[in-house]
Amino acid sequence: MTEIPSQNDQNGSPRRAPDASAVEIAPRSGTAFELRKGDVLRVIDPEGGQVSDLLAFMAADPREAISNGRTFDYEERIRLTRGHRLWSNRSTPMLEIIEDSVGTHDFLLTPCSEATFRHFYGDKPVHRGCFGNLAEALAPFGIDPDAIPVAFNIFMNVPVADDGSLRVLPPTTKAGDYIRLRALADLVIGLTACSAYDSCGGTFKPIHYRIE
Amino acid sequence: MTEIPSQNDQNGSPRRAPDASAVEIAPRSGTAFELRKGDVLRVIDPEGGQVSDLLAFMAADPREAISNGRTFDYEERIRLTRGHRLWSNRSTPMLEIIEDSVGTHDFLLTPCSEATFRHFYGDKPVHRGCFGNLAEALAPFGIDPDAIPVAFNIFMNVPVADDGSLRVLPPTTKAGDYIRLRALADLVIGLTACSAYDSCGGTFKPIHYRIE
Repeated sequence: MTEIPSQNDQNGSPRRAPDASAVEIAPRSGTAFELRKGDVLRVIDPEGGQVSDLLAFMAADPREAISNGRTFDYEERIRLTRGHRLWSNRSTPMLEIIEDSVGTHDFLLTPCSEATFRHFYGDKPVHRGCFGNLAEALAPFGIDPDAIPVAFNIFMNVPVADDGSLRVLPPTTKAGDYIRLRALADLVIGLTACSAYDSCGGTFKPIHYRIE
Repeated sequence: MTEIPSQNDQNGSPRRAPDASAVEIAPRSGTAFELRKGDVLRVIDPEGGQVSDLLAFMAADPREAISNGRTFDYEERIRLTRGHRLWSNRSTPMLEIIEDSVGTHDFLLTPCSEATFRHFYGDKPVHRGCFGNLAEALAPFGIDPDAIPVAFNIFMNVPVADDGSLRVLPPTTKAGDYIRLRALADLVIGLTACSAYDSCGGTFKPIHYRIE
């Protein structure tokens, strides 16, 4: 991870870019950090066309974790955007989406892993994927790989057909698109720049984030 | 749970009913049992209009559990019926659906719980729900309530609209409808007769099952 350098605007005068204080997650990597109740996490797709897997665990007891099933139940929908909340397995709201320049995210699919690389990309080098990156980043917080649930896959474009079949399409994001989520409790967050071919249209790009 | 009595056919001669060896799960209750690799589990809706939440854990290590996200990923669909497999969080196929007289099941929503009763049915008595029933039944197998993932909700009718919104409708099952699943590993199974109002159209009915 590196600090994003400030940029010059069109007039050439130095200014801080909108994400001047953002942190970069390098392509095909991941990180974990604490987010305090009330903090806002901004996740930015700096180049467009990239996906970021987000996990959340309660800082006080990481056995309480983000749950797609509880979220689908309480929000009564599988498509989530501004105004919707992400819920835990113990029925606690953890994060609220307060701004969203994209509106297309996925909460159906698990993080890519060595096994999914072998399954879907048998002709390509195996990568530990977002799952391996998250497992390493979350280990210092006492979170076991088996405790990694389905991630909220920011910017991931997974349409569901009428017959229930899925497709993984390239994200619709443009450079600078972002989502902002407010923490509703003290959390441990896992966050990646996705490693899989399909989810990012065959390209591997960074993700930026900022705690506001 | 009670043994199902044998029945007389239309000619009055005694015979064993098709589910004469089935076990009954009483309305709003649950159970857990071991299923050996190769065994076939038949889950029957004896009256029609009821839902059964199914969980599966590896007998050798129950930290490996059924995962809706891995299943959606490998099967490339959220609607599952004959020929589809249910996968674990470690990317192992656990169960294969080998017969299905209904074709409508849900794998999006978590088991109903005290919290979901308070949320959705504030005017009705709180019930511990399928979650509480599963937690009690699975405790002797060393499975913690926090380790209960999204269940495969047999016969549950949850259409998803184009905008991603969900509805929980009464099951389409008729009396005697069933699903058969083959165990692809030695498993611990949790199974309920659902306790929630919406999922069973406001009625509470038993579920029958048989290990073949």
